[in-house]
Amino acid sequence: MPRTDSPAGAGAEILAEISRWPIFDPHTHIDPHRPAARRFDEILGYHYYTELAHSAGMPAELALPAHDPHTRPRRIAPYLERIDTTVQYSWLVEIARVFHGFDGERITPENVDHIVTAAEKEHAHGWDDEVWTRSNLEAVFLTNEFDDPLEGWDTARYVPCLRVDDLVLKLHLPITVDRLRRSSGLEVSDRPSLVAALGVIFDRFVARGARACAISLPHDFAPRPAEPAREVTPVRKVLQGAETRGDEREDVRQAVFWTIAQLCADHKLPFDLMIGPSRDVYPAGVSGGRDLFDRRASLHDYRKLFNHFSSSQFIVSTLAPDAAAELVAYSWIFPNVLPMGHWWYSNIPAFIEPDLRARIQAIPKVKLLGYYSDAYKLEFILPKFNMYRRVLAGVLAREMADRSWSLDQTLQLAKLILLENPRRVFAPRGARG
Amino acid sequence: MPRTDSPAGAGAEILAEISRWPIFDPHTHIDPHRPAARRFDEILGYHYYTELAHSAGMPAELALPAHDPHTRPRRIAPYLERIDTTVQYSWLVEIARVFHGFDGERITPENVDHIVTAAEKEHAHGWDDEVWTRSNLEAVFLTNEFDDPLEGWDTARYVPCLRVDDLVLKLHLPITVDRLRRSSGLEVSDRPSLVAALGVIFDRFVARGARACAISLPHDFAPRPAEPAREVTPVRKVLQGAETRGDEREDVRQAVFWTIAQLCADHKLPFDLMIGPSRDVYPAGVSGGRDLFDRRASLHDYRKLFNHFSSSQFIVSTLAPDAAAELVAYSWIFPNVLPMGHWWYSNIPAFIEPDLRARIQAIPKVKLLGYYSDAYKLEFILPKFNMYRRVLAGVLAREMADRSWSLDQTLQLAKLILLENPRRVFAPRGARG
Amino acid sequence: MPRTDSPAGAGAEILAEISRWPIFDPHTHIDPHRPAARRFDEILGYHYYTELAHSAGMPAELALPAHDPHTRPRRIAPYLERIDTTVQYSWLVEIARVFHGFDGERITPENVDHIVTAAEKEHAHGWDDEVWTRSNLEAVFLTNEFDDPLEGWDTARYVPCLRVDDLVLKLHLPITVDRLRRSSGLEVSDRPSLVAALGVIFDRFVARGARACAISLPHDFAPRPAEPAREVTPVRKVLQGAETRGDEREDVRQAVFWTIAQLCADHKLPFDLMIGPSRDVYPAGVSGGRDLFDRRASLHDYRKLFNHFSSSQFIVSTLAPDAAAELVAYSWIFPNVLPMGHWWYSNIPAFIEPDLRARIQAIPKVKLLGYYSDAYKLEFILPKFNMYRRVLAGVLAREMADRSWSLDQTLQLAKLILLENPRRVFAPRGARG
Repeated sequence: MPRTDSPAGAGAEILAEISRWPIFDPHTHIDPHRPAARRFDEILGYHYYTELAHSAGMPAELALPAHDPHTRPRRIAPYLERIDTTVQYSWLVEIARVFHGFDGERITPENVDHIVTAAEKEHAHGWDDEVWTRSNLEAVFLTNEFDDPLEGWDTARYVPCLRVDDLVLKLHLPITVDRLRRSSGLEVSDRPSLVAALGVIFDRFVARGARACAISLPHDFAPRPAEPAREVTPVRKVLQGAETRGDEREDVRQAVFWTIAQLCADHKLPFDLMIGPSRDVYPAGVSGGRDLFDRRASLHDYRKLFNHFSSSQFIVSTLAPDAAAELVAYSWIFPNVLPMGHWWYSNIPAFIEPDLRARIQAIPKVKLLGYYSDAYKLEFILPKFNMYRRVLAGVLAREMADRSWSLDQTLQLAKLILLENPRRVFAPRGARG
Repeated sequence: MPRTDSPAGAGAEILAEISRWPIFDPHTHIDPHRPAARRFDEILGYHYYTELAHSAGMPAELALPAHDPHTRPRRIAPYLERIDTTVQYSWLVEIARVFHGFDGERITPENVDHIVTAAEKEHAHGWDDEVWTRSNLEAVFLTNEFDDPLEGWDTARYVPCLRVDDLVLKLHLPITVDRLRRSSGLEVSDRPSLVAALGVIFDRFVARGARACAISLPHDFAPRPAEPAREVTPVRKVLQGAETRGDEREDVRQAVFWTIAQLCADHKLPFDLMIGPSRDVYPAGVSGGRDLFDRRASLHDYRKLFNHFSSSQFIVSTLAPDAAAELVAYSWIFPNVLPMGHWWYSNIPAFIEPDLRARIQAIPKVKLLGYYSDAYKLEFILPKFNMYRRVLAGVLAREMADRSWSLDQTLQLAKLILLENPRRVFAPRGARG
Repeated sequence: MPRTDSPAGAGAEILAEISRWPIFDPHTHIDPHRPAARRFDEILGYHYYTELAHSAGMPAELALPAHDPHTRPRRIAPYLERIDTTVQYSWLVEIARVFHGFDGERITPENVDHIVTAAEKEHAHGWDDEVWTRSNLEAVFLTNEFDDPLEGWDTARYVPCLRVDDLVLKLHLPITVDRLRRSSGLEVSDRPSLVAALGVIFDRFVARGARACAISLPHDFAPRPAEPAREVTPVRKVLQGAETRGDEREDVRQAVFWTIAQLCADHKLPFDLMIGPSRDVYPAGVSGGRDLFDRRASLHDYRKLFNHFSSSQFIVSTLAPDAAAELVAYSWIFPNVLPMGHWWYSNIPAFIEPDLRARIQAIPKVKLLGYYSDAYKLEFILPKFNMYRRVLAGVLAREMADRSWSLDQTLQLAKLILLENPRRVFAPRGARG
């Protein structure tokens, strides 16, 4: 009896097949010099666990890094029981099982030392490769600061991606200007030299194999076309370290953002827009667990950007789960808007599933960019992608039944979503021609 | 074994039954003088295909009408593969199969000429009737410009509906004033004569069998009760072709809108409000594929309208899919607010299904107005309604199981939603008494 | 064969088990002096029925209370058929069946008198206890006005909860000031004496066993930290009955709200925030059926409150169904934000189900506060909780399958959600220590 007779059977068959494919991960925060975790503390210290444990009653201080790598896991472990029904926790157990030989049901104060010992990899030669292979990874995109020297790793595996948050949002800080001067080698002092310095950064990144530029934009940012006359003074002031007003700093943000959008266009670099965070909403939270969002944001505010850079590719993630339908519509209409992944607070099956179903039904299949892990350590990529693959298999099985697709046709769509579209959209420069 | 033992079985049985019923379509853009397509180009040229193909990489120029009716389909066909997993594409294949004998799986550059030839109906006598009959249509509502002579067709089949967008939103254009003068036969020059002219239009439409008035309102429109003293000057200025400021044009829009709402009340004409589009968000897009929305719109802005015209019927569609729940609540409370259909960017099963479920659970059954096609050509009505009927059958099968309804009871609800409510709400004038 | 082989089977087994548990209802409007209905009119007069019947065409006057308790049910009954597919109607039939021996399918003009007679309990000794027992109730939280004497009932069963809407939103009305003076015994005349009087109210409530403070806040309220210098004059003016401007009344609202938040913190009283209603949107509606919401509200406006009172517990309900995902994220991050129930316009399975699934996947399990009835009469608690229990069983069965949970593990989570978390969060003062 063919297993595809029922949606559940078809889902299992789709899942089995797509789980064999390699993983192309177009957005992470992996450190290419230490991609896999050396200690379990780097796994359990991920903000998803510290913030959820804190939300469940753990004092924030317990999440602070400790000298002894055993200490923090022991501090956090007693609180894990309180969050053991979340999907984020399920990634943790999967990591312990797949990578550290854990065979228990739950991570407890009693067994955490055992896991910590098993996960001790500081001197385990080839552990990065081991995780890479066991996860069946194909490419992992990084998040590189603009002054990253981009040296010392295989950029075909760990693909550079230029992160421009500091340039756009923090150019009013002298430290940023200083970093820009040193990394560009230019005496940045006014709008023209700023544009030139940004160009130097872009040239360097592209030459070193960068395949995307990325920024996370606050919920109240609304891109504005360049107005050089208006921007010249505020830009000069921040570059010279002068005091600025809020509206002047906003002018600077707008000037830098639009310039960078132009450079992405010039260099044919996809521009990842991660729209929506409100930073430091909860300042007393744990590191990485202080940001939230204001749901009243709309892509309507990005229409001028999307229109102006018509030959660019804007790879868009939105943070508020209820904004997902708007991204579907904008991706349906604008050729240069592509929806990517399911970001942060949207990254749970309850939100991914309906959104993914809508994307598949309404957006050209060649524009569907399935998923990215946003991981800080290699080990997280597999369980996060596995979660997504389960949701994808379920959604596809249902579409297959509703629309009389064959299994082959369905798997072809899955391959586009998971592999072929990301490979093409984020192709190496040469391959794009 | 009865097939209704499982939700899937019940769904199939419900679908089989409701697929036998005629279609009552309360909102389309059909041309009553050429209701069915004469050429496949009129099918494939529908904005859903040109905009999706363009979104997937087809240059907008290829979507421009061509002299030779074979040319445009040949231009578009190579791009169809890129969108062949969308639900919109599924309507296209269904049309080719049901109306043009197509028996392939996909429309390709290789077979498109064949379909074009099969769909050539310029000299096919009775094709409109053929499509009407094969689709089992009962009534198709039109969208008539206010100066449409409303002559030359059977208004029982093709029901006139007064579209007032130009009057409300474009009265500041001399061409609109000119059209109003000619169609009303009045020398429209000030607020009183404007009201009189609008009355003439309404009288004519009602006399010719109009059963609804309709308007699409931008996302930032918030109806305001009439303030004649404030409106008198702006109205006179636009009618006299004088220059006006933005706030004056807004005064005019408000004045005309409120007057029309009053005329709908006076003439007992349901007023279709289609709320949310932002026009020309993507000006470089293909014709019909340039509008989007700003999700930050709320029915709260319509509370004064709903309160003032308490004996009217406002038939409301909202564009942003995430606004659907608000319409459920407003329809639950306001006797004169009825939710209709699933409009445009909301018109895919992924959005229809949860919204329909909520409407069924929370709104009086006598107020549920299922669906409309928004079609430009008759051929689209059937596949769009079939899509809706599949979703409806699935939703009803689940409610039936959860709430222990009998099949009969469930089918009675389906009939209200699909036929009896639309027939009653949009009844011919005489029938309403 | 174990019934948990399929999600449907597991769902049935979960439902059977959780239906045996007692009900802990942390928010109702029950009158402890007349908790169960004495007459069917008190059931059918619930605003859900009168507003839906009115929405379906019943004149609002028919919903007005009548002298003869038979009259209003007879007036409403003819309209029930129009709303008999709503979930709200299903509660009504369940009440008639469970409590009044009704064995029909629908409540009609023909059988309503019979039900009215069966439900006549004015002289039925012990009816409150009977409903309590048959519903398997454990605790029912009240909504007490700040000047309620809180005497004459068992506060372990009927738990006092201080409702502060009048204090915050209506202190500009002399009647409120008068009530505050009389209930506090203080000559309230300025900001310090206002704070003192509020303290007296809190002391009294806590001494009488109150376990929560509650307020419903309008969609456009954004809490502001105390600014005594700014507030002193407006507060004095309202307390002295002077005329005030809108901005002054807003200052007063803010001052009172922040003071009350402080008192909740000082008294370790959970503060129920019910966010979103817009009052009197439809003034011509039936009593209780005039309020709606504006969906453009965000918890981002509450960030200062949540940060300032870090040791408090904010028990949050939001009204707009599309705002649910934001509450998930805020509960995930803020230790002192807990999502509660599914309120009013969100209280239908179509909205509860996806929201509950997201909460379970993303929020620490110890923070999940399942459901409350919001009931005015005891009889409503059971059918509303039964509806929730059905949704919960379905959601849990699916998670159980997706995440390989055992039935025991799943039931433990259900018990946390339905009983253990509410018991702990709303524990009596002594039990919390």
